[in-house]
Amino acid sequence: MQKQVKFEQALKTKYPEQVVIAIAKDKNGKANPVTLGWTMIASGDPPMMAIGVYKGHYTVKCIRHSKCFTLVYPSSDMAKAALFFGSHSGRDTNKLKEFACKTTPAKKIDSVLLADAVANFECRLVKQIPTGDHITFVGQVVCSHVNPKPQQRLYSLGSGHKLGAVS
Amino acid sequence: MQKQVKFEQALKTKYPEQVVIAIAKDKNGKANPVTLGWTMIASGDPPMMAIGVYKGHYTVKCIRHSKCFTLVYPSSDMAKAALFFGSHSGRDTNKLKEFACKTTPAKKIDSVLLADAVANFECRLVKQIPTGDHITFVGQVVCSHVNPKPQQRLYSLGSGHKLGAVS
Repeated sequence: MQKQVKFEQALKTKYPEQVVIAIAKDKNGKANPVTLGWTMIASGDPPMMAIGVYKGHYTVKCIRHSKCFTLVYPSSDMAKAALFFGSHSGRDTNKLKEFACKTTPAKKIDSVLLADAVANFECRLVKQIPTGDHITFVGQVVCSHVNPKPQQRLYSLGSGHKLGAVS
Repeated sequence: MQKQVKFEQALKTKYPEQVVIAIAKDKNGKANPVTLGWTMIASGDPPMMAIGVYKGHYTVKCIRHSKCFTLVYPSSDMAKAALFFGSHSGRDTNKLKEFACKTTPAKKIDSVLLADAVANFECRLVKQIPTGDHITFVGQVVCSHVNPKPQQRLYSLGSGHKLGAVS
């Protein structure tokens, strides 16, 4: 049986929702990470991934400037970093420095990887689509990396930014 | 530490991945469901949701014909239906009838809801974007429904179509 409700109420059934971190450099060369739950794979061949970024967020400027981004699958150990990256703006913070997050340079795009993550996907921007109050950025994956040490992905477990692993 | 690998290998770290069912009517009025893992919320205000559909799939024709689709969060009890909908083509099967899946009419679009699902979102097509070998369809949510009985969502737990709940 189904009961009609407001969108916001129906959306409470979405959890657990995967968490990713998108990283793009601003015009000053500062790599800026942001935590996102709205993401999908958009193509298998060629590989593409999409992310939804609120149109007012600094990340929109960064991706438009650098025309690329890293899409990171954070590990379940990275909940604090993900919360920090998701709750501060890169306009006035160097989030990666402030959180002392270990990075390595990307290989094929001008961005960085998160060394302790489950996986990193280097994406070249191919499309940006205004979708309501967000911009949907589609990137073609040009290089992929995984952590040889097996790890669990990070998920949003419920409203109020509860983050953790699922099994 | 990160190790460079092929995209396909890195993608194996994506699990658990949420599962949705998209339903759209074909030109004969047959409601055709398909199971998808590639989906995201695309906007909060107005609410929008996106799905990625392989460009050769019958669903592409159905959505283009009816210009709307239902996005369903199946429950963890619906694994068999989800497998069936994901492994048969609506070109030569009436999947909802063959699987005897309980439906009710949608309220604001010409589609159906799945009565036993966790939630149903009625979406009016607003954008269709070619993304590699898939079409990314973006729909504006015009009506939302939930199952008053608390249920768990269905997830893809690993390669080989292992479906189930997560906690």
